[in-house]
Amino acid sequence: MTGCPRVNIECHRTSRSRLVEYGRFDRMADESLFEFLHMEIVSHIFNEQQSSKGEMDNKERAACISLLEAMGFRVGQGLIERLTRDTPSFKDELDIMKFICKDFWTKVFRRQVDNLRTNHQGTYVLQDNKFSLLTQFSGGKQYLDQAPKYLAFSCGVVRGALSNLGLESVVTAEVSIMPSCKFQVVIQKL
Amino acid sequence: MTGCPRVNIECHRTSRSRLVEYGRFDRMADESLFEFLHMEIVSHIFNEQQSSKGEMDNKERAACISLLEAMGFRVGQGLIERLTRDTPSFKDELDIMKFICKDFWTKVFRRQVDNLRTNHQGTYVLQDNKFSLLTQFSGGKQYLDQAPKYLAFSCGVVRGALSNLGLESVVTAEVSIMPSCKFQVVIQKL
Repeated sequence: MTGCPRVNIECHRTSRSRLVEYGRFDRMADESLFEFLHMEIVSHIFNEQQSSKGEMDNKERAACISLLEAMGFRVGQGLIERLTRDTPSFKDELDIMKFICKDFWTKVFRRQVDNLRTNHQGTYVLQDNKFSLLTQFSGGKQYLDQAPKYLAFSCGVVRGALSNLGLESVVTAEVSIMPSCKFQVVIQKL
Repeated sequence: MTGCPRVNIECHRTSRSRLVEYGRFDRMADESLFEFLHMEIVSHIFNEQQSSKGEMDNKERAACISLLEAMGFRVGQGLIERLTRDTPSFKDELDIMKFICKDFWTKVFRRQVDNLRTNHQGTYVLQDNKFSLLTQFSGGKQYLDQAPKYLAFSCGVVRGALSNLGLESVVTAEVSIMPSCKFQVVIQKL
C-alpha cells in the first residue's frame, strides 16, 4: 500500500475548556484499560483450569489464586522499580508503608488508601473504601464469595512492591461489604 | 486490629513545579502498568502451552496467538464503549478510522498513529513508529521473530473496537524494524 494516499489525521486546535475535558476522558480510559485487562486475566486463568476438569475443587481454586498472586508480584516489582527511581531512600518501614498507601496506590488503584493502621510490630491494615477492581460489582454482600479471585492479583502487586523495597511480607485481603476492601500486610522479620 | 492507632498519611502541600513533576510520574506509571500486565499475559499463555508438551509447534503457537487476540478483542470492545459514550455518531468509515488513530490510539497506546493510509476500498494501514508494546525491545531487527506474540493482543484490541462501532474487520500487524509497527485493517463488507 505504499502508493496509497496519506490521510490527514491532524488534531484540530482545541479551546482551553476542551483540553480540560480531555483530561477527564484520559483518566477514565486508563482506569478501564487496567480493569478490563485484569478481568480478562482472571477469567482466562479460572476458565482454563475449569474447562479441563469440569467443576473446580478447592485445590484447583487455590492454584488459580496463587497463579494470579504470582503475576501480581512480578508486576508490583516492576512498577515500584520505575516509581522509586527518583525517590530518595526511605527512613524506615513505616515510611515505606506510607509511600505504598499514597503514591503507589494512586498510581495502580487510582486513589489513596483511606486508612492505614498498624500495631507497630510489623502488621499493617490498609483500608480502601472504594477499591478500583471491585467497583464493577454491585455494592453490598451479594458477590462476596467472588471477591478472592479479584483480589489475588492485587495482593501480589503489593507484596512484589514491598519485596523490591527490601520487605518480605504476607499480604491478604478481606471484603465485608463491596467495594470496600481491607489489605493486611504482615512483614516477615528475617 | 480495630484498636490499632491510625497512621497519618495526609499529603504534604506541593509547590507548583512539584505538581508538574507528578504529572510526568503519573503517566510513566500508567504506561508501565499496562506494559507489565501485557507482558505477564503473553508469557503466561505461552508458558502454559509450552510446559505441557515441551517444544512448541506452529499449531500451538497459533493457538496462543489466537487466545491473545480474543482477549484483546474483548478489551477493545469494552474500552471503545466507554470512550465513545459521549461522542457524537461517526460520519462514515473513514471518520471511525480517524477516531481509532487519534483518540483511541492515544488512550490505549499513549500516542497517535503516525500515518494512516487507505485505498478507499476498505483497506487501511496504520503506522506507529514507536509502538508502546515494542519499546522494551532493543531497536533494529534482532528480535523480529518475537514480534507476533507481542502484537496479537493489540490486533484484537483494534478489531474489538471496530466491531463495536459496527465494522467487522481482519487486523494484522507487521514489524520490519523495532519499535515501528504497521497494522493492516481490512474491513469485511457484509
